[in-house]
Formats: sequence, structure tokens, C-alpha cells
Amino acid sequence: MEVKEMLYEGKAKQVFATDRDDVLMVHYKDDATAFNGLKKGTIEGKGVINNRVTNYLMQKLEGEGVPTHFVEELNGRDTLVKRVRIVPLEVIIRNISAGSFAKRFGVEEGIVFDAPTIEYSYKNDELGDPMINTAQALALKLATPAEIETIRTLAFKVNDVLKAFFKEVGVDLVDFKLEFGRLSDGTIVLADEISPDTCRFWDSKTHEKLDKDRFRRDLGNVEDAYHEMMKRILGE
Amino acid sequence: MEVKEMLYEGKAKQVFATDRDDVLMVHYKDDATAFNGLKKGTIEGKGVINNRVTNYLMQKLEGEGVPTHFVEELNGRDTLVKRVRIVPLEVIIRNISAGSFAKRFGVEEGIVFDAPTIEYSYKNDELGDPMINTAQALALKLATPAEIETIRTLAFKVNDVLKAFFKEVGVDLVDFKLEFGRLSDGTIVLADEISPDTCRFWDSKTHEKLDKDRFRRDLGNVEDAYHEMMKRILGE
Repeated sequence: MEVKEMLYEGKAKQVFATDRDDVLMVHYKDDATAFNGLKKGTIEGKGVINNRVTNYLMQKLEGEGVPTHFVEELNGRDTLVKRVRIVPLEVIIRNISAGSFAKRFGVEEGIVFDAPTIEYSYKNDELGDPMINTAQALALKLATPAEIETIRTLAFKVNDVLKAFFKEVGVDLVDFKLEFGRLSDGTIVLADEISPDTCRFWDSKTHEKLDKDRFRRDLGNVEDAYHEMMKRILGE
Repeated sequence: MEVKEMLYEGKAKQVFATDRDDVLMVHYKDDATAFNGLKKGTIEGKGVINNRVTNYLMQKLEGEGVPTHFVEELNGRDTLVKRVRIVPLEVIIRNISAGSFAKRFGVEEGIVFDAPTIEYSYKNDELGDPMINTAQALALKLATPAEIETIRTLAFKVNDVLKAFFKEVGVDLVDFKLEFGRLSDGTIVLADEISPDTCRFWDSKTHEKLDKDRFRRDLGNVEDAYHEMMKRILGE
């Protein structure tokens, strides 16, 4: 396996071509941003933690029947993944009110919903990733009806699996963001990452925040929270 | 029928109690606002036009099987309606891209959608009527699943009836906002108004705007546009 040119650099990751046309390499950085890039910083060791946590959870999800882009972990920060065309819809599942949901609708954080909610953002930095619904996404031809149905079903399946897993390690899965991609044959697979950058994790007993909100809100002990989550997830 | 105290004053209407517990009187004003109240003005004759146009369209919809709050037109500005508890969800149906849709998603106005879109706003002035989806509305218990299903079905039915009607009078129904209410027995009925204040109307041939966008965007000839729409709708 030979690593070739960098294809894309995002806020927290770099993506490289490889000598296999259908395989890319993801490199996880320690850089952190929030509020659509307005806040910037570094969380030491984050890249390693997010890489390892994402790969662990992706493999667990594969085992439960959720197709993912995961191929192979190369080292602490580098992972091979299948090449996908990303569907330009971020999918957010929420079990408990927090963050933008609480702010947008004027409710407190911590309301446990009777059923999880699903919402979509149109992945577009210039527009600020606006919330979009499925009728609007179809009108803009961002995905087909079949793709949206698959994404919806997989997202709730991911929630079922992860919610149960995190409960066992004493963590409430508050909400999380997923991205999906299309393989060359059109198959929809889970892509991007699942980590303290993309999930809200609250300790089940103390309700302490163990995720990127510690960075967003200047709560301190950011690195400790990331390490604690890795310990609970990987059991080490 | 005796008119009693004013119960509510909105941007464009006043609502009064009557001596019948289940009937209210709506009075239509000439006042106009836009951008969540930031822009204010008067459109002379608007109250009469919106009252007569709304009542005409509500009766047409009743004839097509859509239950509404309409009871009786008393005079040019005053109408009796059934008392409802308003469902705090504004329903927007769009056939063609325009306004906030075009701005939010960075597309031009005038894209004719393959299928109409539906979207909801949480009716809350303080929060700026944020867009909300049905999963979120359920989580916040703004309506029941059965109510949302009824509202969705009725909203698309309204679109079918109105789109066909307006086509006959040379007008493209671009988009419109509806509100629904609950009667004392829980029945969902169409409420509020259907007028150039709440719809976008474009002349089918010239694409001239014949609605409140003339006021919002300072296009001039606002009163003429309202009169033209009344003439086309009522045939007088």
C-alpha cells in the first residue's frame, strides 16, 4: 500500500489517495474547531483517540449489520477507508435535548425524548450547514428517495446499537452526527467518524460532559474527557 | 350576534369574542409587517381584499372536502370563524423556489420542483419562528402524530385545489403558509387566512409578483397587485 497525494484537508482530518483506486487513507489531526470555524484550537492526543474510537465503533456497527467505509487501521492516526462520494446531508440523531436543539427551540438541555429525533443539515460551509428536511433535500436533488430511506433506517440502527453500548460503559448518548457516502456501485455506507468530536456523551451518573462541548464552552479538562471516553470505549 | 371584547391583536388582524362561545369574529386591518416585524407599513384596502379572498378560498376548499374555520362573512373586514386552539406549527408548501428557501439553500428563485415540498415553522415570535421538522415537533409535543399526519394530508390537498384554481386565472402558486387549529372536540381544521399576505403569486406569463413581496422588497404598486389578485380570484 502506497500513500499518494492529499485529496482534501478538513478541520480535523486529512484524506490521501493510495495506490488502490477504491481505497483512501484518513489521517486524524489534533486540530479542533467549533461554531463553523470561528473558534480554533488544539486538543492534544485527539487525533489518536478519534481514530481508534471511530474504528472500534465502525467495526462494532459492521458486526450489527451497518455497512461502513472502514477497511483497516494502519497506526494511531491513519486508517484506510473505502472511497465514497459523500451524500451532502449531515444526519443528527438526538435522544436528549442539548446544543443547537435547545437553543433553537428555547428549551432546557436534558429533556429525555419519548423517541429519538432525526434531523438533517445541508453540508455547505458557505451557507452555514442549514437545517433541511427530506422534502427539501429531494427538491434540491441532494439524494434519491431510496437513499434517504436507507440513511434514515441506518441512522436509527446506529443509535440503537450505540445507545445500548454506551449505557454499558456508564455513558448517556445524548446526540450525534453521522455522514454517509456512496460506493462506486451506489451502495450507501456509513462514513466520516464517530467520536467525542461528533457525539455528545454525558456520564450517566454525574452528567459530566465527556465530549467536544468541553472545548466549545471552555469547560476545561478537554484532554481528560477524551481520554476517559477512549478508556471506557476500548476498555483500556 | 353580539361582538364582545378583543381577545388578541396580531400584525394584520384583530380577534373578538362573540356571544357564542364557539364563534369568534376576525377583523382584517390594512397594517403590514415583514421580516418578523422589523418592517412596518400600511397597504390601503388590504384588509378588505384579504378578508374577501380568504373567505372565497376557504369556501372553495370546504367544497373540496377540506374542513375550515369559516362560518360567515359579516362585511368587508369582518368574518365569523369557529373558535380553535391554533396548532403552533406554520405549514409552508412550495411548488417553486423563492424567498427564504432560495436564500437558505443558496439557489435561484424560480426552480419548479418535481414535487411540492412541505416544511414547518415553530410558531414562536421570540425564537423567530424557527424551521422545525416533524420528529422535533413530536419531541416537543407540539402536536400528536395523528394531528401531524392530518395536517400534512390537508396541506397537500389545499395545494392541489389552489394550484389548479390559480392556474385557471393565470397565476402560478409559488408557495404559501397555512395554519391549522383544533376545534373543542379535537378536529383539525384550516384556520388563519389565505391571501396575498400568506401566498406568493406570480403572473403565469409575465412572472410579475402579485403578493406581499412587492411590500417586502419595495417593488412599488403594492395596492395594484392586491387589487389585481382580488379581481382574478373573485372575477370582479
